[in-house]
Amino acid sequence: MKFDRAQLDIMPKRKRTNFINSLSGVKSANLVGTTSISGINNLALISSVFHVGANPPLLGMLFRPHTVRRDTLENITASGCFTINHVNEQIITQAHQCSAKYDAMADEFAEVGLNPQISSLCNAPYVQESKVKIALKLQESHLIKANDTQIIIGEIVEVICPQELIEDNGNVDLASANCVGLEGLDTYLKLSSIIRLQYARPDKA
Amino acid sequence: MKFDRAQLDIMPKRKRTNFINSLSGVKSANLVGTTSISGINNLALISSVFHVGANPPLLGMLFRPHTVRRDTLENITASGCFTINHVNEQIITQAHQCSAKYDAMADEFAEVGLNPQISSLCNAPYVQESKVKIALKLQESHLIKANDTQIIIGEIVEVICPQELIEDNGNVDLASANCVGLEGLDTYLKLSSIIRLQYARPDKA
Repeated sequence: MKFDRAQLDIMPKRKRTNFINSLSGVKSANLVGTTSISGINNLALISSVFHVGANPPLLGMLFRPHTVRRDTLENITASGCFTINHVNEQIITQAHQCSAKYDAMADEFAEVGLNPQISSLCNAPYVQESKVKIALKLQESHLIKANDTQIIIGEIVEVICPQELIEDNGNVDLASANCVGLEGLDTYLKLSSIIRLQYARPDKA
Repeated sequence: MKFDRAQLDIMPKRKRTNFINSLSGVKSANLVGTTSISGINNLALISSVFHVGANPPLLGMLFRPHTVRRDTLENITASGCFTINHVNEQIITQAHQCSAKYDAMADEFAEVGLNPQISSLCNAPYVQESKVKIALKLQESHLIKANDTQIIIGEIVEVICPQELIEDNGNVDLASANCVGLEGLDTYLKLSSIIRLQYARPDKA
């Protein structure tokens, strides 16, 4: 079935939102931890984290300025740091609950039933129940003019990951870590390894 | 196990690249189709596509300026358009082969054994073997100063997707479409649905 812009524009709003949100393919499910100037911990479910570079080690993510995630963006701007914590199968419901619009004064760790873990290198809490945890300092931000969203680039200052999840080639074994993916806004996906392929070369099919 | 920046910096180069590349969590696997000014089709495996917004419908992706993907970036800049095509289990090896550094004059569809499909709305080829295909026009680009990578934002002009893959709520059923995810640079992941959760509200755990 083909949809041109006119057909997309007349889709019912919620259906269209879900449709477009699932068009990028599977998204990573991460919890972003921050602390406000007044010391309140904030936790947000973010599905827009993307790899930016390995040297220096950089990750990016996208924020909509006027959603529940504004607290997170404000905290990152004020404190200059944040954590990214992989969502695994054991904490899907708690992680999803972080997308609720809690009061700005609420400690979302307590609200959803997850535990903060202090980092010595970053004024932002890790999620104790997450297996792969990354602390970052804010590096730069870019405003997307087309829809006023904001891209944040962070530089990795610390990674916490069980040794047994790191494969010989360096890959974090996301399937064994029970890390999950997101389809659209609400559907969680299990990951299982199919195949690892060699570095591709033109003369080798 | 904890890694601070000093410990990351002394990791063997390839291991470090794989490690950092898998830290964002699962990545979507997409083929980006473009056509050069001289009419040569190009196909690139891109794992950095991310959702930017539903209204207007926008997707973003990241390019490293000095890799094999430069052809793609140059074609997008020159033609103003490109396609994004989901990789499914049936075309993993062909898709992965697109990451090889072919000569600039090579038609990568022919090289890897995939077929171009013409779009009436966009001067860039779809991948016939892909089930979910999106045509976009270039909207804006941003240079990431931290590592000279470039973010491209595109506006969706057409979507081709089998009706049976679109769920009642609008989600594209990525698992039924056999769409795959990527871990790091080389490991392909199968997706299967775990649970769909309701819109989260503070008063409803």
